[in-house]
Amino acid sequence: MPVTSMRLSEIADFLEGEVVGDPAIEITAILPVEAAAAGAIAFISNRKYVRSLATTKASAVLVSPELAELPHPETTSLVVLDDPYMGFAKLLNHWTYVPREVTGISPLASVDPSAKLGADVNVMPFVYIGPDAVIGDRVDLHPGSYVGKGSVIGEDTILGPNAVVHHDCEVGERCHLYAGAVIGSDGFGFAPDRVTGLHLKIPQIGRTVIESDVEIGANSTVDRASMGETRVGRGTKIDNLVQLGHAVQVGMGCFLVSQSGVSGSSKVGHGVMIAGQAGIAGHVNIGDGATIGAKAGVHADVPSGSSVLGSPAFEGERAKRSLAAIRKLPEFRRRLRNAERRLEALESTLSSS
Amino acid sequence: MPVTSMRLSEIADFLEGEVVGDPAIEITAILPVEAAAAGAIAFISNRKYVRSLATTKASAVLVSPELAELPHPETTSLVVLDDPYMGFAKLLNHWTYVPREVTGISPLASVDPSAKLGADVNVMPFVYIGPDAVIGDRVDLHPGSYVGKGSVIGEDTILGPNAVVHHDCEVGERCHLYAGAVIGSDGFGFAPDRVTGLHLKIPQIGRTVIESDVEIGANSTVDRASMGETRVGRGTKIDNLVQLGHAVQVGMGCFLVSQSGVSGSSKVGHGVMIAGQAGIAGHVNIGDGATIGAKAGVHADVPSGSSVLGSPAFEGERAKRSLAAIRKLPEFRRRLRNAERRLEALESTLSSS
Amino acid sequence: MPVTSMRLSEIADFLEGEVVGDPAIEITAILPVEAAAAGAIAFISNRKYVRSLATTKASAVLVSPELAELPHPETTSLVVLDDPYMGFAKLLNHWTYVPREVTGISPLASVDPSAKLGADVNVMPFVYIGPDAVIGDRVDLHPGSYVGKGSVIGEDTILGPNAVVHHDCEVGERCHLYAGAVIGSDGFGFAPDRVTGLHLKIPQIGRTVIESDVEIGANSTVDRASMGETRVGRGTKIDNLVQLGHAVQVGMGCFLVSQSGVSGSSKVGHGVMIAGQAGIAGHVNIGDGATIGAKAGVHADVPSGSSVLGSPAFEGERAKRSLAAIRKLPEFRRRLRNAERRLEALESTLSSS
Repeated sequence: MPVTSMRLSEIADFLEGEVVGDPAIEITAILPVEAAAAGAIAFISNRKYVRSLATTKASAVLVSPELAELPHPETTSLVVLDDPYMGFAKLLNHWTYVPREVTGISPLASVDPSAKLGADVNVMPFVYIGPDAVIGDRVDLHPGSYVGKGSVIGEDTILGPNAVVHHDCEVGERCHLYAGAVIGSDGFGFAPDRVTGLHLKIPQIGRTVIESDVEIGANSTVDRASMGETRVGRGTKIDNLVQLGHAVQVGMGCFLVSQSGVSGSSKVGHGVMIAGQAGIAGHVNIGDGATIGAKAGVHADVPSGSSVLGSPAFEGERAKRSLAAIRKLPEFRRRLRNAERRLEALESTLSSS
Repeated sequence: MPVTSMRLSEIADFLEGEVVGDPAIEITAILPVEAAAAGAIAFISNRKYVRSLATTKASAVLVSPELAELPHPETTSLVVLDDPYMGFAKLLNHWTYVPREVTGISPLASVDPSAKLGADVNVMPFVYIGPDAVIGDRVDLHPGSYVGKGSVIGEDTILGPNAVVHHDCEVGERCHLYAGAVIGSDGFGFAPDRVTGLHLKIPQIGRTVIESDVEIGANSTVDRASMGETRVGRGTKIDNLVQLGHAVQVGMGCFLVSQSGVSGSSKVGHGVMIAGQAGIAGHVNIGDGATIGAKAGVHADVPSGSSVLGSPAFEGERAKRSLAAIRKLPEFRRRLRNAERRLEALESTLSSS
Repeated sequence: MPVTSMRLSEIADFLEGEVVGDPAIEITAILPVEAAAAGAIAFISNRKYVRSLATTKASAVLVSPELAELPHPETTSLVVLDDPYMGFAKLLNHWTYVPREVTGISPLASVDPSAKLGADVNVMPFVYIGPDAVIGDRVDLHPGSYVGKGSVIGEDTILGPNAVVHHDCEVGERCHLYAGAVIGSDGFGFAPDRVTGLHLKIPQIGRTVIESDVEIGANSTVDRASMGETRVGRGTKIDNLVQLGHAVQVGMGCFLVSQSGVSGSSKVGHGVMIAGQAGIAGHVNIGDGATIGAKAGVHADVPSGSSVLGSPAFEGERAKRSLAAIRKLPEFRRRLRNAERRLEALESTLSSS
């Protein structure tokens, strides 16, 4: 059942934080700091919202030790903890937790008799499960989702409506593949025949492995490998409309934001952030902890821990300055022309003197 | 029944325009101006096609008052009206109108008994309607489409094949969600845990509201809000493969062209045009009537009525000049090097004199 | 049945190549050159891998005549042929060939009685086939796929799970539309009404034609024309999440890489390569054999055989140099400022002398 009320002291205990103010107040809502009213708890982690602390109407705010020093209304108590955003996430998860219902296997689903289904699965109407597929305990297959021949879906994983896992792929535990996501579609590989224009397909006989705790957003696509495998590492989160090509390897704990893409055979390390609409060319290595900026076009290896921007992408801080300088180009041109004229004038003065 | 013939005078009356030429001619087709032949009516609104007026074989052309002054063949009559493109649209809608057929509820659909269905709905095979969903009168749910628990679909709205509206969302009247569109999927929000790489999901407990008269293209995705709502305003048209993040607000009458994206919590005003493959970062405001150029990357607020281009995007006309100047960079570099050499020569002449 | 073993002489005969080394060795695997071991055959076509020839553990390698001159291990035989990548593709297709199984028409599919189905079709569960649709011999319609009213699907074509072909479209022979691809959705056309914001839809009464031997990737979208048709030419291969607007014409044998898009009414010639995340504006012509670089934004016609890059895109080699020069902009600015200072100094020296 969702939680609807907690004392501030209980919240502080739950999050292992410390109360500054009144531990006895009753909290009945979790709200954004701008929208919070009496009875609500909010959090501040983004710098943009630090100012809100002075004027918030929230009864309590989750803050970091530094922010705890700042002025806040008398009617507002604080819970001080190292990572207020994580605290907010934990609290919100606790409050909104709803136990899973087991509805079982719909008579409108199509389940191959050779498939193995775990305990307490939900197989909703219009779900297709192919031969020899293995569905773990407590898996939810939403309407229209598809598990191909021989694929394995780990425990507690969710396939959204119309999500597709093609044959012989593997999805780990506690994953969520959102509506329309396609895992294990053929990679884009052809031997070009420029004479006839009838390019010959390279058979895509590899597979795709999605490790545990991965989310893949709506209508995103992760191709299977031609040979070997495409792999998305544990805990990586992928947004909507993202494309991963064949034999791509993505490490653990990465974020891939909407409409970004990684081309075939590229390797993305652990803890990498790829921002929206960025693209990584094929056969490129992105080091651990790297940050690829929004709309970046990456054609060369990116070292661990570095940050790149632009297309072609280069080192982030320099790239920011360089890209910002583009708007000065008409001015540069004018100044350059002016300098050339002054040079001519000087040269003619000197030559005539 | 589709219309197959109208007199030019009838057309002029229907569009509230004026005939220049023969009002008695019989029009039997509506065609593009380049393809139009005797018996056909065409329109000219795009400047590119003004030249075609002199040589068209169309029996009639819809034109604006200015174009009515230009020379045109004797065999061509004109219908003069303020907005010829709108006139063309009205006429084509009139000619191609086909009354909707009511086929009712397919026995192959899965409709929860608690869902409320309006009059004359079409619920086609493999449609899933969850508990407590409300489906308005004359709604068409095409095969494989999905309406989650508690969602409301307004009158005369169409869900294309495999379109998905997740739980507790609201879609207005006369909307069209095309094939594979996904409304109300979870926003992309996590409290990052950089140590373990196992980021904690922020529950996405808000919803998505699509107001009336909205179109959302094939395989586009509109996430639900973490808290509060994501909203698309009345009359806004969204193309294919577009992404709207959580808590995005889009105003009325906007156009979002294919493969563009708006990140979480950004606000797009009324009458905004976002061109193809453009991206708007999170927490940004786009003013009413603004134009975001193709492939623009917008990281800062855009004032009402302005037009921006480039990535990072800046004011449109200046941006056009600046981006065009990029191709001159090798020349600039050469000229700069040359100027430096000439400076050195002058400096050494002067210092030795 | 998949092939599991061939003599090298048989392979050479099959590919019409020549053995250098031992024609009698038995080949039992096809592997990438870096992964190949004794018993395996590999290929080298990409320059990156030429070095591997000297040290490969493969029993045989497919090479071009030039590479046949390079040193290679004594234990490695060569098969020399003009196009080793094509040879590899042919061999891999031969080895992995699995005859198609005929499972027939699922009782869980919805097939309109007026639809015409060819011989040996597979119509899987939750497939919808509309009135008057025509399905060719040996077509595979995977679960959740959709063929609209009056559409024609050519022989040996495959629709992946949840792929959609809207009404009155045509798909050729031996095509593969991958999971979630949408063919023939309405084009994005409206007569803007800036006053009310309620733009009037232009009826999209044209159709989409996909010629034979075309592949269309997962979740890609190809709109129908407003009038006339959208067409994808024979042998063209389209990757995932690609968008083609209304009335786009794509020629034969093109490659369109993931997340690229072509706007309405543009014409793409034969043998064109459009790289990832590139965008073509509307009403533009791309000549035969042109190459559009990754992330390019094309707003003007591109001549046959040329290659373009950047946004706005221009000629490729020059564009590469120009785009690379962007990172020098802060340096240019510094040097320009410096030159101006030196000019001032010179001018004041001269004026005071």
